[in-house]
Amino acid sequence: MVWAVKMRQGIGVYEASERIQAVTPVLGPESVLLGEAAGRVLAEPIFSSRQLPPADNSAMDGYAVHSADLVDASEGEPVRLPVVEEIPAGAGSSQRLQPGAAARIFTGAPVPEGADAVVRQEDTRSEDNQVWVTVSVKPGENVRDAGEDIQLGDQVLGGGDSLGAVEIGLLASLGRSMVRVHRRPRVAILSGGDELVEVDGDVRGGRIVASNSYALVAACRLLGAEPLYLGISEDRPESVEEQFRAALDSDCIVSSAGVSVGDHDHVRPVLEKLGCELDFWGVRMKPGYPLAFGRFEEAASGVAGRGPLVFGLPGNPVSANVSYNLFVRPALLKMMGYSTCFRPVIRARLMESLRKKPGRMHFVRVILENREGIWEATSTGNQSSGALSSMTRADGLLVFPEEAEELSAGDEVLVQLLGDAPAGEMALGF
Amino acid sequence: MVWAVKMRQGIGVYEASERIQAVTPVLGPESVLLGEAAGRVLAEPIFSSRQLPPADNSAMDGYAVHSADLVDASEGEPVRLPVVEEIPAGAGSSQRLQPGAAARIFTGAPVPEGADAVVRQEDTRSEDNQVWVTVSVKPGENVRDAGEDIQLGDQVLGGGDSLGAVEIGLLASLGRSMVRVHRRPRVAILSGGDELVEVDGDVRGGRIVASNSYALVAACRLLGAEPLYLGISEDRPESVEEQFRAALDSDCIVSSAGVSVGDHDHVRPVLEKLGCELDFWGVRMKPGYPLAFGRFEEAASGVAGRGPLVFGLPGNPVSANVSYNLFVRPALLKMMGYSTCFRPVIRARLMESLRKKPGRMHFVRVILENREGIWEATSTGNQSSGALSSMTRADGLLVFPEEAEELSAGDEVLVQLLGDAPAGEMALGF
Repeated sequence: MVWAVKMRQGIGVYEASERIQAVTPVLGPESVLLGEAAGRVLAEPIFSSRQLPPADNSAMDGYAVHSADLVDASEGEPVRLPVVEEIPAGAGSSQRLQPGAAARIFTGAPVPEGADAVVRQEDTRSEDNQVWVTVSVKPGENVRDAGEDIQLGDQVLGGGDSLGAVEIGLLASLGRSMVRVHRRPRVAILSGGDELVEVDGDVRGGRIVASNSYALVAACRLLGAEPLYLGISEDRPESVEEQFRAALDSDCIVSSAGVSVGDHDHVRPVLEKLGCELDFWGVRMKPGYPLAFGRFEEAASGVAGRGPLVFGLPGNPVSANVSYNLFVRPALLKMMGYSTCFRPVIRARLMESLRKKPGRMHFVRVILENREGIWEATSTGNQSSGALSSMTRADGLLVFPEEAEELSAGDEVLVQLLGDAPAGEMALGF
Repeated sequence: MVWAVKMRQGIGVYEASERIQAVTPVLGPESVLLGEAAGRVLAEPIFSSRQLPPADNSAMDGYAVHSADLVDASEGEPVRLPVVEEIPAGAGSSQRLQPGAAARIFTGAPVPEGADAVVRQEDTRSEDNQVWVTVSVKPGENVRDAGEDIQLGDQVLGGGDSLGAVEIGLLASLGRSMVRVHRRPRVAILSGGDELVEVDGDVRGGRIVASNSYALVAACRLLGAEPLYLGISEDRPESVEEQFRAALDSDCIVSSAGVSVGDHDHVRPVLEKLGCELDFWGVRMKPGYPLAFGRFEEAASGVAGRGPLVFGLPGNPVSANVSYNLFVRPALLKMMGYSTCFRPVIRARLMESLRKKPGRMHFVRVILENREGIWEATSTGNQSSGALSSMTRADGLLVFPEEAEELSAGDEVLVQLLGDAPAGEMALGF
């Protein structure tokens, strides 16, 4: 199920990435309840329909006062005020505070009309319904103004903002129980080859599990896309066609090869028959040369709009994973509305020398360690494309440029982070 | 629902973190199907029950041969061999390859018994059932040995490894359709205060949405924990007790306050009545001083084992979020089996000067920008504890040490990253 080797030259990594991103659509909006919105990307700007705090309120536990009453207050000569009411948070006062009076108030409670400051509890003594204030306060002291954090009509979030916990809390505080977000891509995942079996299959006779599909389903889940697993097709055109037809109403098809190539490749003719325009078949990189990309001219339904993108990943697990990270993942993130689609790249100091032939960009699996603010990159060792276990140990992919032949120990190199960032140089001393 | 101000001194940030981590349990294992295992943490080491590749197999499309037959082969004097069979990947050969013969073979297909090398298709010409080979090959050339990537009995993953896409693919390739992982914590989320309403509630009279709870539910979902939303209790002991009782069979209770404190606090007596041992009530930090932590002596059922951890977060949204990130999130990750529980910390250059009083560690919301490998940190501006919108813009929390009073522009500072890492200094040129 690889159609790659047909075109030996391939295109460069940057060009491949640009071509993919250029035709990848941002998916349209849908409305979701706030409880389902975490991890999604806003498809609308959010303007505040309320002010926060909703009213002038106390920043302290203490007493709401007229500041003019306390101009001469001091430890030696405290000012005595009658306490005319107690204002709990959330209730608000029904009456105006008259000059010469105080109201007991708690943090967050609305300051009563008339009052212009709050005296901290620590600066008072109280007895019965009276309070002795030992300090003067400025107008506005210990009062948080209505609208101090957010004013009516403020834009608080923008279209394209991703919704983490903080944003969800912010939307809740504005009373937004439904928001418009970008749709999640449905990703059809399929593979083909008579040597492939499912995870519970019989592997005698050199057969292997279609493990790339399982990895892709997991990757989609972790990313927030919707995987649609279509199984393994046989090495017959009818079987391959049936599988691709089932994938046509997805947003993106990710097909992964068995290990066989060449004579057993029925994918390309099937794709052409179904109306897929293949853009390229190989990328000058290692691991992962055989990478195909295309898209369907129109949606399966025949209605306006384009059909799914198609990625044909190499069968080799490491190649498939590197290709997924470099090309498929950014496309899915763009579909989901993210503006930052690529994994972060950091500078690191190479701890060993590396050699290769020119003509392909190599992505070397490396372990990163931080020493006093400098990242040090060391190869995971076995860079064989089959060594998936080396991928589990890697923190990032060192970018060994296409035309370079040697990198020396001590060179500054670029490393694209894989998965979560490594733990950082320290855990805050904890 | 804050019991914090009762103990004015509080403890230090590091000590709080250590005390929490010291008593946080790693949750026991459960078995899950591979399709549900992404994002979980292994509770068992995985040893390989197969070797990968399963058999000696071809690294190329070409012909399996006896290398001894080709010692004298060259472009000028190609060696002719009869092609006795074609071996597709996944099928395997049923017969031994005799000296003086060749077998057509494809990448990944098992090399037939007898053959010791593969000649690349490019180095041959074929006609009818014969092939002319124009190069000599060394024994083992273009053959990937059985077990080259993984041998029978190899430990491929360890207990405590988290399962990303690569690990799921690796487990699939070994035929593991079920694995033992650490249980996900059930997190009871509750809040209290008469000023609080749900997202669709009436906010007249200074009432506000219990937005912290919505943020916490989202944070749990994004982290992979199981939120259990218990709503808002009233400012009456019976209501608070009812809510905590409903939370008792969780693994962790996160209670968040309204804005009121002091006289309206029914939480502490209720917790004591229900058997919760409170460890501390305040942490010397800003934002977020009023933070309570404790745990129940025994599980609700009365059977062996401890009851849930209890976190009492401040009502202020920014304080609640910072406290969540510093204390609750690492505890939940430890429960889930992660060994790296704290967010990464990076070094940055401060772009402005900052002042504060000594005695509390401040966490200043900053935006990070990378200039030629150096991170530059700039305050988000409004550091008011209410300004949740400043939190949505922050890339990290600058650590302003407890006893420090001033940081100057140009100083090297530590910044704990929030949420996803910022985009890195470049997107690989894409």
